Amino acid sequence: MIKVGIIGGTGYTGVELLRLLHCHPEAEVVAISSRSLNGKRVDSIFPSLVSLCDLIFTLPDDESLYHCDVVFFATPHGVAMESAGAFIEKGVKVIDLGADFRISDAKEWSNWYSMVHTQPKLLSSAVYGLPESNRNLIKNANLVANPGCYPTAIQLALLPLLSNKLIDLSNIVADCKSGVSGAGRVANQSTLLSEAGESFKAYGVSGHRHYPEIKQELVAMAGSNVGITFVPHLVPMIRGIFATLYVDLLDESIDIRPYFENAYSDEHFVTILDDGVYPETRSVRSSNYCQISWQKIPNSSKLVVMSVIDNLVKGASGQAIQNMNIMFSLEEGAGLNQIGLIP
Amino acid sequence: MIKVGIIGGTGYTGVELLRLLHCHPEAEVVAISSRSLNGKRVDSIFPSLVSLCDLIFTLPDDESLYHCDVVFFATPHGVAMESAGAFIEKGVKVIDLGADFRISDAKEWSNWYSMVHTQPKLLSSAVYGLPESNRNLIKNANLVANPGCYPTAIQLALLPLLSNKLIDLSNIVADCKSGVSGAGRVANQSTLLSEAGESFKAYGVSGHRHYPEIKQELVAMAGSNVGITFVPHLVPMIRGIFATLYVDLLDESIDIRPYFENAYSDEHFVTILDDGVYPETRSVRSSNYCQISWQKIPNSSKLVVMSVIDNLVKGASGQAIQNMNIMFSLEEGAGLNQIGLIP
Amino acid sequence: MIKVGIIGGTGYTGVELLRLLHCHPEAEVVAISSRSLNGKRVDSIFPSLVSLCDLIFTLPDDESLYHCDVVFFATPHGVAMESAGAFIEKGVKVIDLGADFRISDAKEWSNWYSMVHTQPKLLSSAVYGLPESNRNLIKNANLVANPGCYPTAIQLALLPLLSNKLIDLSNIVADCKSGVSGAGRVANQSTLLSEAGESFKAYGVSGHRHYPEIKQELVAMAGSNVGITFVPHLVPMIRGIFATLYVDLLDESIDIRPYFENAYSDEHFVTILDDGVYPETRSVRSSNYCQISWQKIPNSSKLVVMSVIDNLVKGASGQAIQNMNIMFSLEEGAGLNQIGLIP
Amino acid sequence: MIKVGIIGGTGYTGVELLRLLHCHPEAEVVAISSRSLNGKRVDSIFPSLVSLCDLIFTLPDDESLYHCDVVFFATPHGVAMESAGAFIEKGVKVIDLGADFRISDAKEWSNWYSMVHTQPKLLSSAVYGLPESNRNLIKNANLVANPGCYPTAIQLALLPLLSNKLIDLSNIVADCKSGVSGAGRVANQSTLLSEAGESFKAYGVSGHRHYPEIKQELVAMAGSNVGITFVPHLVPMIRGIFATLYVDLLDESIDIRPYFENAYSDEHFVTILDDGVYPETRSVRSSNYCQISWQKIPNSSKLVVMSVIDNLVKGASGQAIQNMNIMFSLEEGAGLNQIGLIP
Repeated sequence: MIKVGIIGGTGYTGVELLRLLHCHPEAEVVAISSRSLNGKRVDSIFPSLVSLCDLIFTLPDDESLYHCDVVFFATPHGVAMESAGAFIEKGVKVIDLGADFRISDAKEWSNWYSMVHTQPKLLSSAVYGLPESNRNLIKNANLVANPGCYPTAIQLALLPLLSNKLIDLSNIVADCKSGVSGAGRVANQSTLLSEAGESFKAYGVSGHRHYPEIKQELVAMAGSNVGITFVPHLVPMIRGIFATLYVDLLDESIDIRPYFENAYSDEHFVTILDDGVYPETRSVRSSNYCQISWQKIPNSSKLVVMSVIDNLVKGASGQAIQNMNIMFSLEEGAGLNQIGLIP
Repeated sequence: MIKVGIIGGTGYTGVELLRLLHCHPEAEVVAISSRSLNGKRVDSIFPSLVSLCDLIFTLPDDESLYHCDVVFFATPHGVAMESAGAFIEKGVKVIDLGADFRISDAKEWSNWYSMVHTQPKLLSSAVYGLPESNRNLIKNANLVANPGCYPTAIQLALLPLLSNKLIDLSNIVADCKSGVSGAGRVANQSTLLSEAGESFKAYGVSGHRHYPEIKQELVAMAGSNVGITFVPHLVPMIRGIFATLYVDLLDESIDIRPYFENAYSDEHFVTILDDGVYPETRSVRSSNYCQISWQKIPNSSKLVVMSVIDNLVKGASGQAIQNMNIMFSLEEGAGLNQIGLIP
Repeated sequence: MIKVGIIGGTGYTGVELLRLLHCHPEAEVVAISSRSLNGKRVDSIFPSLVSLCDLIFTLPDDESLYHCDVVFFATPHGVAMESAGAFIEKGVKVIDLGADFRISDAKEWSNWYSMVHTQPKLLSSAVYGLPESNRNLIKNANLVANPGCYPTAIQLALLPLLSNKLIDLSNIVADCKSGVSGAGRVANQSTLLSEAGESFKAYGVSGHRHYPEIKQELVAMAGSNVGITFVPHLVPMIRGIFATLYVDLLDESIDIRPYFENAYSDEHFVTILDDGVYPETRSVRSSNYCQISWQKIPNSSKLVVMSVIDNLVKGASGQAIQNMNIMFSLEEGAGLNQIGLIP
Repeated sequence: MIKVGIIGGTGYTGVELLRLLHCHPEAEVVAISSRSLNGKRVDSIFPSLVSLCDLIFTLPDDESLYHCDVVFFATPHGVAMESAGAFIEKGVKVIDLGADFRISDAKEWSNWYSMVHTQPKLLSSAVYGLPESNRNLIKNANLVANPGCYPTAIQLALLPLLSNKLIDLSNIVADCKSGVSGAGRVANQSTLLSEAGESFKAYGVSGHRHYPEIKQELVAMAGSNVGITFVPHLVPMIRGIFATLYVDLLDESIDIRPYFENAYSDEHFVTILDDGVYPETRSVRSSNYCQISWQKIPNSSKLVVMSVIDNLVKGASGQAIQNMNIMFSLEEGAGLNQIGLIP
């Protein structure tokens, strides 16, 4: 049994780790921290856990966390950066669900997060944890930067197109839509039900922190520069990300299905839909799957690719567990066999 | 043109006053205050008002407010109590949408609001502003305590039964359900879309601040003591209150329809539905109407009465305008002729 | 491995059986029928199952169903009544998620379902499948009538009070609220998002088909007649039932906690909350748990008991699997260890 | 008082016409038809109208409709085509909220609507009813084709860019999102709350009936061919359309604000937001306004333009009334002064 610790377990990615790991056959959460809730029962904060979880929140430097095999950081940016090193030194593997180790260029990171990156060495040792593109590096990593939710949806939709050089790299549009849980559990006027319910809006159009991560990884996939316009929107629902990607095929007549099938034939968590079937976010609600389909626009070079994930599962906690499974040579899908909740 | 001021215009009842008064033929908002937003344009806070409202938030003691004919207090409890007197002295009528003047017993008020009531004299001059039961007093009032949302829905459902002494006063159950806007626009974890969406819960079961107001008014209607159990619930929607009332008829064989029709035949804003038609909150969404129906339970003394209102209109700002119309001898429905928004 | 068949697998209880049994360690769905979708892939109807389910819909009399160890009927009323006998004769156990075998009095059933009950013998052999009150009978049953969703929530809330004779049996009010999935997957104007969304309403106030089931079982628990008023309401959400019960304690001073704790100390799927904590439907969303709490009303005999379930899990498919586990001497919680989905 | 008739008044655009015209100072609905509900009271179908509307549904060929000054067709496609001529001959002006007269090329119309267009003459006399681009023609029209909801949002967002030749016409992407009411009030499995709630999806990606209308009008605005990719999506909310448009500026350095301000300075129902303010659909919920803003993407020719409307108001019934006002030389905003419903 792998001993798991969670640092910062009071948000949605924290409780999602608890939910998913509860069904994991070979891993067990043994410690969970929260500075503000130190000493409180975890099930007093998350009533879904009453009678199912006996854990008590500890302080983030509690000894019990250092006795774990792996710790997940589910903390605001800047926290994992300062604390991850101490765990790694003691042989505890670290998976950061936050943004501290996603951008390999420390200066670029600092620009977007308005904070100096204090651990450039650690940063250079971190592996970007998208299993579908980085599995071999993840296997041996001690520090994994779990991808952001938008970047996961976008990369999985574009990977076969970029790695096979099928599209114009200068004109990619990513129109993305997210449920409100992506904004977290902190009290905030703009995500009140009365404000965000029954309404749809764009946000962060002038620049969103996921942009440099998206760009960095697409460039790596393409092997050259990429011009992408990324606009996130807020959907009046709790979970789910829908990415609609508009790209131009270099060869209008090409059949792209074989490229997607080749890319994902061995990928358990990426599902290619049949022609004419478009994804819905609810199909992957509560599950770790990404569903993808596309539509070629007639008399045009334009291809529309669509992907859906649950932002809290494949877009956060589920992918983090998938990474853990890879790092510990467990079955990659262990603990992640739940089917999407419909209806 | 009646000059209207709004004190504390940054919440939902404030913007609702602006929305409704925008269509009022004989009243105009000339000043609106907000301590925190002093100097800011109102339409920068409420984008529905862009190009339609030129007001700038002032401080609550701004001279312009004292030149109004009437001011609405849309403030947290405790504010109107301290400030209303100065307006009334200068001949400005006051309608308080908060709770400061609803409970005639200052000690009872203090128990529920954890604050001493500093203005017992003013309190004794206040008129409880439910037009359907208090119209004549409202006409001549200088200070009106606008009823709470739950109390409005409950009183309108029970008024004909109580005033005609048709039911057992010792065993009334009021199971009430409210949309989330009742909790206001202040950032609060429990009313985030991710927390309050797709879920239903009870709250305040051990005691809700509307209870003493409900009790006081039902006792007044009945002319004797009343035993009522009141349980509020939170519905995953923005607007609307549904009250389900369970009472025991003293005479099982009685036809209660004539009593409701007599009580409300001249009431523009109370609608009695046909037998077998039950109300839905959406039927009165955005309108000032209350719709009521009932069902006699066979082989039992039990009668189920159901009423719906929009908590922000008949349950707050609309009723406040109705009171203003009465106080200024305008047509009672002026500015309130909007039909419920369906769908 | 227990071989499971599903008759009528195109509705929400059908897909929920597939979702839950996918994670069951000792049972496997081997056949699923749909008259209208015969020959079609199951995952073409439920996109959450793409790549996870290879089943093809068969006709309901397909041989494969008769080779199962157990079949679940997820059909409209009247279907299981006609077909269950043939399965039982061949040694296949039957669990009916519909209403055909819930009411032991065939005439009463006929009154509510406007259809003659053609199988009174079979009916008399059926066991009512609420494990918390009927576990021993379920163990040896060949035909289990899986309880309705409202009856499950109400019975679990009242069982300790009735069996211990703590309350006035003549004055019980059950004000219940359900998500829209209870109305099924059939196209229906009244459950369109544009009709049922952002609104709250009562329905079936003059008589709901779950009423005779509730009454029958409460009478059995109490050992004498029971007077109950049952009003169901529709909540603008997908899953969940909230039952608010108003009862009168015979002895106002009694502490009811020990009675609930005794009744449910060995029950895995019934959770008693701490004093002052009230349930929310989301706490049990997607899980088989029922959470219960209560509030004594001061200076009154009134007790408010609240219970929540997921109508599609503990209120339907999850409870059916729990019954299956009992009938086959499996661990009662097998396949049902998922935690509620928050947020 | 202008006498208004409504043909086919049982859907959402029908009840929306009733809601808006109820507050119109110079127009009155005197007849409303429904083949299926002939003889029934209108308020028995729409409970928001109880006590506020005495109309009875007639047959669509009822004499009363021919005595109107104007009739609105709120019917499925194919109906207005057959019936409009008879009204126009008798001097009754016609505004068709459906699609029959939107596409000037009868063959193109037939391809998209799988039906021969039987009235090419009538078609050639119809005026496309977008006031912001066609006001002068509307003034004298006898037959107005009221624009579709998506086309309205897209055209208003692009009009200043196209008419001033500021963008690359070959590479326009319109990623659009609509609330569910756009799908109408007809029972349909895919728009049940349990199916469309808490989920986001694309639809009609391979071709949507609004595409030829969009293309036709953009070409007219640009004065040359236009390449546009249009993808509609379904949002889990009732009302609202959000259009996100991705275009390439011919001159990256241009300031586009003056072009928008010039285009819309005299337009009452088009609001330009400040820099950095992005629209939300709720800002125009229940109102006839369109709000627009944009964001230039740095280091790129890409411009993102965003527009919002209420699909049932500016996208249907409100715009139809605006057209009526123009046709009858009334104040263009008569009956349309309601402010968006927030929250």
